[in-house]
Amino acid sequence: MREWKDYLYIFLFCDIVKKQIRLLGIDDSPFTFNEKYVNIIGVVMRGGSYLECVLRDQVSVDGDDATFVCKNMIKDTRHKKQLKAVLFDGVALGGFNVVDIEEIYNETGVPVVTITRDKPDMKKIKKALQKNFNDWKRRWNVLSKGEIHEVKTSYNPIYVKCVGLSIEEAKEIIKLSTIRGVIPEPIRVAHLIASGITRGESYGKA
Amino acid sequence: MREWKDYLYIFLFCDIVKKQIRLLGIDDSPFTFNEKYVNIIGVVMRGGSYLECVLRDQVSVDGDDATFVCKNMIKDTRHKKQLKAVLFDGVALGGFNVVDIEEIYNETGVPVVTITRDKPDMKKIKKALQKNFNDWKRRWNVLSKGEIHEVKTSYNPIYVKCVGLSIEEAKEIIKLSTIRGVIPEPIRVAHLIASGITRGESYGKA
Repeated sequence: MREWKDYLYIFLFCDIVKKQIRLLGIDDSPFTFNEKYVNIIGVVMRGGSYLECVLRDQVSVDGDDATFVCKNMIKDTRHKKQLKAVLFDGVALGGFNVVDIEEIYNETGVPVVTITRDKPDMKKIKKALQKNFNDWKRRWNVLSKGEIHEVKTSYNPIYVKCVGLSIEEAKEIIKLSTIRGVIPEPIRVAHLIASGITRGESYGKA
Repeated sequence: MREWKDYLYIFLFCDIVKKQIRLLGIDDSPFTFNEKYVNIIGVVMRGGSYLECVLRDQVSVDGDDATFVCKNMIKDTRHKKQLKAVLFDGVALGGFNVVDIEEIYNETGVPVVTITRDKPDMKKIKKALQKNFNDWKRRWNVLSKGEIHEVKTSYNPIYVKCVGLSIEEAKEIIKLSTIRGVIPEPIRVAHLIASGITRGESYGKA
């Protein structure tokens, strides 16, 4: 059903090919602290536009299984070999169920990038951990690993950690996969699915 | 983070604006006949590329609530006013829970398009209804309403019904919202989400 214009576009957009890299974005569903488990949604996208696959698993709220569950999500998907990176919205799922991004990279071989809109307030996080968890030291050690980079965008800056690739490579991946605003599509879409299946209609921003 | 090339593309692609129409695609989760309910996923997309919203509800397997549930999904979403059409993968969800597309159009004002890859074998369907349902006549009357159009594509033909718009308009919408293959993105993405959240990893084609 293509017209000649479409072929012109294809010709002009040949550098889009590099935008076809496969990325996995992971986010959790909204939840209340009465709930024991929270859904985790993974989406495999080609660059920032084409949805290839949707994955679902669960982690326990404030539990310690997020690293294990995410490692398996990556290892088990049939798209694993094509994945250029895994993108997370922050370094914890289901509350303070912290994700060890170094361990994920070491055991899967897939580089990991975490992105947050707000600069993490590490003092506040440490206090919250100390107050609520006997194993706060373990969680703190996992959470505080690695450097947080402030990355400028056309809007507000975002805060990025990366393992298995340089910050320059991470920036390139973020740029390639962001369509509107500052959040890469694989994370934005994972968030829409995770909130939509839980609440009936998706809302809010990743 | 845009480069000059991106602005050139924006300029050259100005007619893409017309591709930004909002469409709702609806599909059901895979299920077994031991299950009582099946998840229904709706996705609102701008044309064929940008996911705006994810909706979830459920219908009973082989039940009679699909029309009611889909009407409410359309009426209740905050995107309702922007919807140019609703796209279904066929005219039934959760087995033979038939969708009355005329009723949906009449009560929501949103045009409806149904698409299938295979030409529906109406004789076979009628027999299956007669064999399994006391109210087969009602289901048959809903299912058999409206003309089935064979629509040519670059691949195999698809089979299309439409209410509230002409077949030419329906073809234009299908063309605008199809990226790869023959199935419009809103239906393809709804299928990936519905199968992914149920099975853990999405599979198969809408």
